[in-house]
Amino acid sequence: MADVAIIMGSDSDWRIMKQAAEVLDDFGISYDAAVKSAHRMPFEMLEFAKTAQDKGYKIIIAGAGGAAHLPGMVAAASSLPVIGVPVSLKNLDGLDSLLSIVQMPSGVPVATMAIDGAKNAGIFAARILGTYDLELRSKIDKYRQDLNDLAKAKGEKLKQEVQNA
Amino acid sequence: MADVAIIMGSDSDWRIMKQAAEVLDDFGISYDAAVKSAHRMPFEMLEFAKTAQDKGYKIIIAGAGGAAHLPGMVAAASSLPVIGVPVSLKNLDGLDSLLSIVQMPSGVPVATMAIDGAKNAGIFAARILGTYDLELRSKIDKYRQDLNDLAKAKGEKLKQEVQNA
Amino acid sequence: MADVAIIMGSDSDWRIMKQAAEVLDDFGISYDAAVKSAHRMPFEMLEFAKTAQDKGYKIIIAGAGGAAHLPGMVAAASSLPVIGVPVSLKNLDGLDSLLSIVQMPSGVPVATMAIDGAKNAGIFAARILGTYDLELRSKIDKYRQDLNDLAKAKGEKLKQEVQNA
Amino acid sequence: MADVAIIMGSDSDWRIMKQAAEVLDDFGISYDAAVKSAHRMPFEMLEFAKTAQDKGYKIIIAGAGGAAHLPGMVAAASSLPVIGVPVSLKNLDGLDSLLSIVQMPSGVPVATMAIDGAKNAGIFAARILGTYDLELRSKIDKYRQDLNDLAKAKGEKLKQEVQNA
Amino acid sequence: MADVAIIMGSDSDWRIMKQAAEVLDDFGISYDAAVKSAHRMPFEMLEFAKTAQDKGYKIIIAGAGGAAHLPGMVAAASSLPVIGVPVSLKNLDGLDSLLSIVQMPSGVPVATMAIDGAKNAGIFAARILGTYDLELRSKIDKYRQDLNDLAKAKGEKLKQEVQNA
Amino acid sequence: MADVAIIMGSDSDWRIMKQAAEVLDDFGISYDAAVKSAHRMPFEMLEFAKTAQDKGYKIIIAGAGGAAHLPGMVAAASSLPVIGVPVSLKNLDGLDSLLSIVQMPSGVPVATMAIDGAKNAGIFAARILGTYDLELRSKIDKYRQDLNDLAKAKGEKLKQEVQNA
Amino acid sequence: MADVAIIMGSDSDWRIMKQAAEVLDDFGISYDAAVKSAHRMPFEMLEFAKTAQDKGYKIIIAGAGGAAHLPGMVAAASSLPVIGVPVSLKNLDGLDSLLSIVQMPSGVPVATMAIDGAKNAGIFAARILGTYDLELRSKIDKYRQDLNDLAKAKGEKLKQEVQNA
Amino acid sequence: MADVAIIMGSDSDWRIMKQAAEVLDDFGISYDAAVKSAHRMPFEMLEFAKTAQDKGYKIIIAGAGGAAHLPGMVAAASSLPVIGVPVSLKNLDGLDSLLSIVQMPSGVPVATMAIDGAKNAGIFAARILGTYDLELRSKIDKYRQDLNDLAKAKGEKLKQEVQNA
Repeated sequence: MADVAIIMGSDSDWRIMKQAAEVLDDFGISYDAAVKSAHRMPFEMLEFAKTAQDKGYKIIIAGAGGAAHLPGMVAAASSLPVIGVPVSLKNLDGLDSLLSIVQMPSGVPVATMAIDGAKNAGIFAARILGTYDLELRSKIDKYRQDLNDLAKAKGEKLKQEVQNA
Repeated sequence: MADVAIIMGSDSDWRIMKQAAEVLDDFGISYDAAVKSAHRMPFEMLEFAKTAQDKGYKIIIAGAGGAAHLPGMVAAASSLPVIGVPVSLKNLDGLDSLLSIVQMPSGVPVATMAIDGAKNAGIFAARILGTYDLELRSKIDKYRQDLNDLAKAKGEKLKQEVQNA
Repeated sequence: MADVAIIMGSDSDWRIMKQAAEVLDDFGISYDAAVKSAHRMPFEMLEFAKTAQDKGYKIIIAGAGGAAHLPGMVAAASSLPVIGVPVSLKNLDGLDSLLSIVQMPSGVPVATMAIDGAKNAGIFAARILGTYDLELRSKIDKYRQDLNDLAKAKGEKLKQEVQNA
Repeated sequence: MADVAIIMGSDSDWRIMKQAAEVLDDFGISYDAAVKSAHRMPFEMLEFAKTAQDKGYKIIIAGAGGAAHLPGMVAAASSLPVIGVPVSLKNLDGLDSLLSIVQMPSGVPVATMAIDGAKNAGIFAARILGTYDLELRSKIDKYRQDLNDLAKAKGEKLKQEVQNA
Repeated sequence: MADVAIIMGSDSDWRIMKQAAEVLDDFGISYDAAVKSAHRMPFEMLEFAKTAQDKGYKIIIAGAGGAAHLPGMVAAASSLPVIGVPVSLKNLDGLDSLLSIVQMPSGVPVATMAIDGAKNAGIFAARILGTYDLELRSKIDKYRQDLNDLAKAKGEKLKQEVQNA
Repeated sequence: MADVAIIMGSDSDWRIMKQAAEVLDDFGISYDAAVKSAHRMPFEMLEFAKTAQDKGYKIIIAGAGGAAHLPGMVAAASSLPVIGVPVSLKNLDGLDSLLSIVQMPSGVPVATMAIDGAKNAGIFAARILGTYDLELRSKIDKYRQDLNDLAKAKGEKLKQEVQNA
Repeated sequence: MADVAIIMGSDSDWRIMKQAAEVLDDFGISYDAAVKSAHRMPFEMLEFAKTAQDKGYKIIIAGAGGAAHLPGMVAAASSLPVIGVPVSLKNLDGLDSLLSIVQMPSGVPVATMAIDGAKNAGIFAARILGTYDLELRSKIDKYRQDLNDLAKAKGEKLKQEVQNA
Repeated sequence: MADVAIIMGSDSDWRIMKQAAEVLDDFGISYDAAVKSAHRMPFEMLEFAKTAQDKGYKIIIAGAGGAAHLPGMVAAASSLPVIGVPVSLKNLDGLDSLLSIVQMPSGVPVATMAIDGAKNAGIFAARILGTYDLELRSKIDKYRQDLNDLAKAKGEKLKQEVQNA
């Protein structure tokens, strides 16, 4: 059974959403990826949400663009934590997607990431699972340390370049 | 059987959505009003949409605020024309509601009205029904003429006030 | 006589508006396409709107960009249902077009589609005509089913690719 | 014959548009005020625009809110200079009105003022007429000098208050 | 030890953030509430974040307005899941707070809620903890059912009122 | 002496502002073009504005981008009608330029055109001068007729293409 | 001679700008306050800017609303550091003021504060002067410590209230 | 010891931030450049801010994009004047960066420059240092004069081109 379900409104969202998959791979977290369009597959989408828990999923990551209803609808039909990723389309730079996902009414939360922020959705899933999984928690600590090391290395490189310029 | 279903995400939307009801009354069009929250009643909402046609509804008017998913979800689960009304809430003046309703993906249209424009939703329903109902078409012609008369009367009154000032 | 008139503010809008024409073709709905610029042909535009019903049109689809006045003006001079398509131009991503079309005053509705959403305008026209045309209604049901099948097929393909990766 | 026509989409716009009238009074410029709703009186509105020149008007000031089509439509049907005033309504603070008025296509200009800036519309009309009317030009010079004097007087008063505080 | 830390940039945010506390009370989840201003207490804030895990916190809920840096900074210094609540201040309706919280760079996610959506922050914390706590999961199921029942009851009431009107 | 001064904040604005020059050429209106940067030449800019009338200019067209202060400052130092053109730069699509130009305080109007709408600035200058110049007025009438003819010709061409497709 | 000049576009801005004055008083920094409207007193404004240095001012704080040109124009005519304060007016929540002040072209910087952030303008002036004034630097250190103490005290109070609730 | 520290959230910001470095070079002001990511190096970043004064820095220039927390956090942990540069990323044109930097709470100011306005950050640093350094002040005067000369030269060139066209 996979721990995380990565769903998206369209297969064209995969170019963004695969970044969630990649980071879950890095953390060794199992996942499935599927298209569950709120507007083209409303019943399957809702059925998916309703049964996600029984299938063993612990977290749902949902990405969508424009009038992005998928994350909110899934959150309405499941008690699992749902992480929403606003995907930017041709117009408006994803501002419509962001507002459609984040401005949920009281009672039905969606944990919204940055526009096109699928990688962070994967990391946040790891943070959730790390709440009870100490090994995973250590990996997150290490991930943060790696970010830190990399930023310092890049900074050092920049410093050298500037001094030598 | 009622011709139009007026649905909304919350009973607090009724302060806006009743303006659709009132104008339908004026046109002599039958309607039902119901709360069908996309987020609090997702299955009932979708079931409603799926069976709306069989219940005899010809048009669905759907109002919602914030991450306003109701109109789009209903349009996804029904072949009826769906008219969406973005309702303004405490923040953002309904811009979030507008974008959440209007920016639907190709394949699933929602006929979006102005922010808080429930009255126009009722009038647009009349225009749809008037496509085949000549008597109703005449009422719409008359409605437009009444608007015209009223605007001219108000204009005349203003003209007098300005001249007398 | 054609059932739908597709009008636009400029022939340069055709790159977007032809998507409405194509989907109407798919549904077997007859249409005419014409440039009726609100700003360059105001009298012809209004005359067109006034006589559209007599010419047998049942629905008007109107696309325009920037200060997009065409849909609203046509809706003011006709009792037909008017579907508005905001067209994005060089600046502002169509936000100006959207607000100019959707924010109509009480009394004169325009059914607004997504920015550049001409395809949905055609589909919504089909939904309107399907209100009384059972054969067309069936086509819409089938169209929705096709969308559903396609989305599932794409989803299945994505699933395979992810599993094989 | 009045030199300036002040028109507006609704008599409710008069609360804003009367500021144009007042400043025209101050400059001794004649004007008429009228409601010419683009959406409720499209034909009268266009007829008004077409004949405005023949009636002796030299300038048209047009105010409207929301999907504010009046200024642009009048500019389309007349060769007179048209000054547009975006009026703020309940939502969006007049941003929709502003974009609907200012974003006119090439060929048909509207001289757009600030949101609710009807007073400036009157002053700009005076500037236009002052192009050939030297006496009026002098009044504008004096008006600007008065603004200057008043600002300095208020500044002096503030300076005193601050020093005495 | 409390499971959730509710922190905020200013004690004036408590009017919003207490809604998170109330819903945590409803779920029987323990929490502490504290002011940890990113800008007035940067070192204490970062120290708090660094040691939050050791103090036994499983989740951090962080609310802030304007240039809302608290949630992102805490997420940078802790491996715990951080839920951010954009608080609306006098200007801009919380749009600045929302963008400051949600647009986090890759590597450091903040689970962003709606503007002023503190209640949903509490519910989302419950969903996270429910991932491993079956009793809590049941409470969330029940909470969703209660929302559903309430919405239906309100809908029924509205239906009656409309029919009796 | 030229009738119109076309000024701009930077020579890089000429790519847009030359469209004003071209249309003035079409109307046979004389003009000068000059860089008068509000921020790099504040004193020369203000001196220019102060003496523009004495140099025989009847109208000033001013284009600028970003924090676009030129049109407003010139309007502050001259009684001539000032037409402002917001120029779009790399970010924000000219929205900053538009607001910086149009939102002038009471007393000092700038006639604002569309973003990058320099052509309309030239046409509006013609409309102003046409107020007293009957020959120019005729040219504007003809210009509007040409627009109308061209739009109709393009529309006819589109109609043919659609019918033949 | 005062170290800081606080100028504003209108005496009505004093309700906001006096917060700069108050905090300068707290730091023992001398200042003058004056109305220098860019639009109503352009020459005096520019003359003020040009001579500000000779009068002994070290810093200029300039507040303005709407098309807020004052800070940028003063920065253009002086080599002193200019701090700009966007003042919110009736519409748009100060977004127009902010963009008009902050989006300055390369070469002429304005140090922009938050919308209505006059208090921070005063504090930033202190930080500038503290660059060479060690006693003032100590006051800023203390001010930051006081902020810290106050925030902690308020946080402690909140903590008690929550525990006792 | 360098007078100015140029820090940034990521080495990818250097493409923008080097413009600050270049102009500081022009003014003969010493600087260091470093990556101090608020989110990837929170403790080093804060430590940097805390000790910046002791290292002899007089001014900090901080650039960041998206949820841009770096400038505000540094300003919270140091009494030095902090100049913030909003960097535009892939979406939203830097509007998120701008609001995240400029909307700081009372007590902790960041002197915000235009989006991508790193060059102005360098110039503003010069203006600050010029407050007590007369030689530097003269350079700024000269810089402003050079801007003026260049603008006039470009304007003259444009004038010639237009006349010869």
